[in-house]
Amino acid sequence: MTPAAPTKLLADRLRRAGEVAAAQDIDLLLVTPGTDLRYLLGAGGASHERLTCLLVPAAGHRAPPALVVPRLEAPGLTGLPLAELDVEIVTWADDEDPYLLVSDLAGGPMRVGVADSMPARHLFGLRDALPGAGQTLAGAVLRELRMRKDAAEIEQLRAAGAAIDRVHARMGEFLQVGRTEAQAGAAIAAAIVEEGHLSAAFVIVGSGPNGASPHHDVSERVIERGDVVVVDIGGPLPGGYHSDCTRTYAVGAQPRAEVRDVHAVLQDAQERAVAAVRPGISAEHVDAAAREPITAAGFGAEFLHRTGHGIGLDVHEEPYIVSGNALPLEPGMAFSVEPGIYLDGRWGARIEDIVVVTDTGCERLNRRPRDLVVL
Amino acid sequence: MTPAAPTKLLADRLRRAGEVAAAQDIDLLLVTPGTDLRYLLGAGGASHERLTCLLVPAAGHRAPPALVVPRLEAPGLTGLPLAELDVEIVTWADDEDPYLLVSDLAGGPMRVGVADSMPARHLFGLRDALPGAGQTLAGAVLRELRMRKDAAEIEQLRAAGAAIDRVHARMGEFLQVGRTEAQAGAAIAAAIVEEGHLSAAFVIVGSGPNGASPHHDVSERVIERGDVVVVDIGGPLPGGYHSDCTRTYAVGAQPRAEVRDVHAVLQDAQERAVAAVRPGISAEHVDAAAREPITAAGFGAEFLHRTGHGIGLDVHEEPYIVSGNALPLEPGMAFSVEPGIYLDGRWGARIEDIVVVTDTGCERLNRRPRDLVVL
Repeated sequence: MTPAAPTKLLADRLRRAGEVAAAQDIDLLLVTPGTDLRYLLGAGGASHERLTCLLVPAAGHRAPPALVVPRLEAPGLTGLPLAELDVEIVTWADDEDPYLLVSDLAGGPMRVGVADSMPARHLFGLRDALPGAGQTLAGAVLRELRMRKDAAEIEQLRAAGAAIDRVHARMGEFLQVGRTEAQAGAAIAAAIVEEGHLSAAFVIVGSGPNGASPHHDVSERVIERGDVVVVDIGGPLPGGYHSDCTRTYAVGAQPRAEVRDVHAVLQDAQERAVAAVRPGISAEHVDAAAREPITAAGFGAEFLHRTGHGIGLDVHEEPYIVSGNALPLEPGMAFSVEPGIYLDGRWGARIEDIVVVTDTGCERLNRRPRDLVVL
Repeated sequence: MTPAAPTKLLADRLRRAGEVAAAQDIDLLLVTPGTDLRYLLGAGGASHERLTCLLVPAAGHRAPPALVVPRLEAPGLTGLPLAELDVEIVTWADDEDPYLLVSDLAGGPMRVGVADSMPARHLFGLRDALPGAGQTLAGAVLRELRMRKDAAEIEQLRAAGAAIDRVHARMGEFLQVGRTEAQAGAAIAAAIVEEGHLSAAFVIVGSGPNGASPHHDVSERVIERGDVVVVDIGGPLPGGYHSDCTRTYAVGAQPRAEVRDVHAVLQDAQERAVAAVRPGISAEHVDAAAREPITAAGFGAEFLHRTGHGIGLDVHEEPYIVSGNALPLEPGMAFSVEPGIYLDGRWGARIEDIVVVTDTGCERLNRRPRDLVVL
């Protein structure tokens, strides 16, 4: 484990998590490996079948902050500032019951908030060891912290946006007539790493009819002259923050009139949604801003998904830009704005930027041209 | 999603899962994306925040086999033989509640088995939508199937073993005096892919004192002449089955007497444990067979972990070769035999092979020399 955030920042996050937990009547947060753990400790831990679990007591609660960890993983914690954070390390051996250790530390029945990503195997182990405790999702606490990015987090997202923009700028190298989507995708994945990402978390190359499947990845389909191709790509920087950017390309030939027209509707919708982003506006208002012009043009049913998702240590996190989410936007919230139009069996298009809410509107973290670029 | 197993085999797995569920008084299995889903459907699905869930009714139960999937993911299912498997596809849009869909399909209170890896967010969603249902782990059902590998699975594990053996055979290219562990690790990771793996799932290069940390990965430590280096590496083949093999090397110089002696104890322990493997012997007996000679030599406390873990679609799965596990071994069970001795702050050693239980003993899937190879 290598820490990715200054100790002072981590201490502040742990303290605030305890305060928000107390405000939500949660006594203790139980955080297994994943991005919540990375946010709180600077390292995400290894998610194997052995229990690793951070205990974060609510403000004023008696339980000590502690990290329960398999004995054989303990040497890997030396890089973490656990002593400075006042987090006690509690190790367990393969013949011990780690859930009882958590129960002993917790010290009695209570209301616990478990990490949203905690696997059922651990959740049930904790349920049995803490029979009187109510279990709820820690995500309700942690999203209050994680969805409001601080300056250092925004700087990381900005760097991620610039890195994926460099990959889109090179798209002419990758999308070529006669290549399969898989071949193009492999070259794009390599470029994602070359441009500074730790890995390519996802590479969607949806050519022709495959572009009508929003979560298509790649296939053996050969890219043909005149294809419309949706390219949705991203990954984490070494610091853990993600990029995510979609552009739609025409390969080898000027697009026909229908494609130009539908893409223009989409581009207008994306512009309107981005223009709608500012503090105080609801998440669902941004969704509606994208949806209205698409519906007016007759493609409402072909815009199959919500307009966007928050982004940070996870590719998908709060806030979700979706009908029914009345959350008012605040400065520091970062999310995608990515309307799409999917013509089943024929072709599709999507345009996606990450934006960060500012005091007066938003900053786009992706800057590549949004019109239908012909390669 | 691309199917990785013949339809007939998948149909048989679904049927047997229903039978074992019935025998365990479970009415319905709920399987979210992961290796259990891959085992049953041939594709593991995408594990995002949106619910994808396979419903596998127990033999004789009224609920239909069904796959609940986000509408935007549905086009990606075209490669799966769902119709042939009699699995109904039920899609949901972003403004619908997928848990209520599962509840409607389930048709009333019951005892459900949820995938061991199901995240808390989905588990609680299902708990709320199925308030009368008892939740237990589906792993108790699925491990009955998954820990007994069929011929095709063993063939995949055999190929994985041969692939990682080819990487160990090239270790002289990677472990060189003056390189950091991270540099050696990057070269090893590339070789893991070159030799046929889909990715390098883990690369441990524990040189000198880092070898005493069993789950160390890599660091900026420079490999020095005379270092003892633990190299524990593996990854999945494209079919999803994993390799996992550890060897301990001496770099640049003949090992000193203490190292030779301790490694000889370890090699003897690993041989004895492998020799103990045969049908009817308990998992913990194999653990004891490895532990006894190490304890007799005075290093019992330095063998920090269990002797092994099952392997297949997961790197770690049942059966675990650990004290307390009385499970009798059966032909087709595949697991690691990997004792280690860790001298805190100084150096460590581990030897690991994957073995498959045969009718009369076991087959080793890793064949590289087990003595302390000097590079």
